[in-house]
Amino acid sequence: MSAMDKRPEYMNLKEILVEMKNISELIVDLAYSSILFDSEAIADEVSGLEDTMDELNYQLTIRALLASRTRDDAEQISEILNVASAINNISDHAQNISEIVSRDLDIHSVISESLKHTDEKIFRIQLDDLSQLIGMSLRETQLASRIGVTIIAVRKGNRWIYNPRKQYVFQKEDLLIARGTEEGNLIFKEIAKGRRSKW
Amino acid sequence: MSAMDKRPEYMNLKEILVEMKNISELIVDLAYSSILFDSEAIADEVSGLEDTMDELNYQLTIRALLASRTRDDAEQISEILNVASAINNISDHAQNISEIVSRDLDIHSVISESLKHTDEKIFRIQLDDLSQLIGMSLRETQLASRIGVTIIAVRKGNRWIYNPRKQYVFQKEDLLIARGTEEGNLIFKEIAKGRRSKW
Repeated sequence: MSAMDKRPEYMNLKEILVEMKNISELIVDLAYSSILFDSEAIADEVSGLEDTMDELNYQLTIRALLASRTRDDAEQISEILNVASAINNISDHAQNISEIVSRDLDIHSVISESLKHTDEKIFRIQLDDLSQLIGMSLRETQLASRIGVTIIAVRKGNRWIYNPRKQYVFQKEDLLIARGTEEGNLIFKEIAKGRRSKW
Repeated sequence: MSAMDKRPEYMNLKEILVEMKNISELIVDLAYSSILFDSEAIADEVSGLEDTMDELNYQLTIRALLASRTRDDAEQISEILNVASAINNISDHAQNISEIVSRDLDIHSVISESLKHTDEKIFRIQLDDLSQLIGMSLRETQLASRIGVTIIAVRKGNRWIYNPRKQYVFQKEDLLIARGTEEGNLIFKEIAKGRRSKW
């Protein structure tokens, strides 16, 4: 898990790589979800994450160049650049996938039908001020064991928290990205919207 | 979920796309895991999946070309080719990530440290003939709710089953790819190795 409390320019090389890896995992899931739900809002999240990824990759490259003093340094650091470049490319292609939503084309039914062939789905929901979740920690909610829903990321304004820890406390205006079965997702939406107080 | 019971040459366009999407999600997780565990065995799985992906993409392209009779067909089908190409590229780059393991380089500590920053980890385990799991369905085992471990794929010889359904029955020689917390993974390994019969 990592909280993007810092802007990329204040992060060290390792923090940047952690962030890039987290984004690469989330962005692939989101790209497929944007098509599945024909959702421009999710496609926009993908674009935003891809911009963040580019910035992170730039900051990582700068740090890598500055850190290379000896030939040994340079050889080891070139590995990091290779991995970072591959991670960045994954996110580029995830954006290519979600672009068919942004381009406002009719999504070919073969594509959307294919994406339905999975037991678990990703969804995106804005926490309502009335939700029981507000003020509760992820541990207290026991969402995973009770309704089979996992929170994979939280967006607060422009900041993202990936794989929030058990201590994470839900707050007003959190935008949540979650993964769960169709049944779990329906229950979770009721909870997040403040229309259900027990689960 | 999809069982790769069929060889790609007997699958229809939708089945191929489902398979490609499933592989693209699994391969990114596996690529990071190969580095995390410095495991050539996992890096080899990544290579094998990437070969399968290439074959699927080829078969999809052939079907797409044959299916395009009118201009409307062609426009819609070109979308499918774009998405398939992006999916295929994701798997190429996942392989680039795991290649640093196959190349037998010392993995730079910054890279492996970065990958540890996650609560849930992927692991790969071969089911032992003595394991209690053999003959049980995924539903009966209740692995997800009891020990927090999710089976994300099963390999039987050269075939893969992604996101196995609750009805899936464990069999001798299954190679399992699972995701769970460190604690869950340790318990699961004991179960899979036949060293633990209750959980």
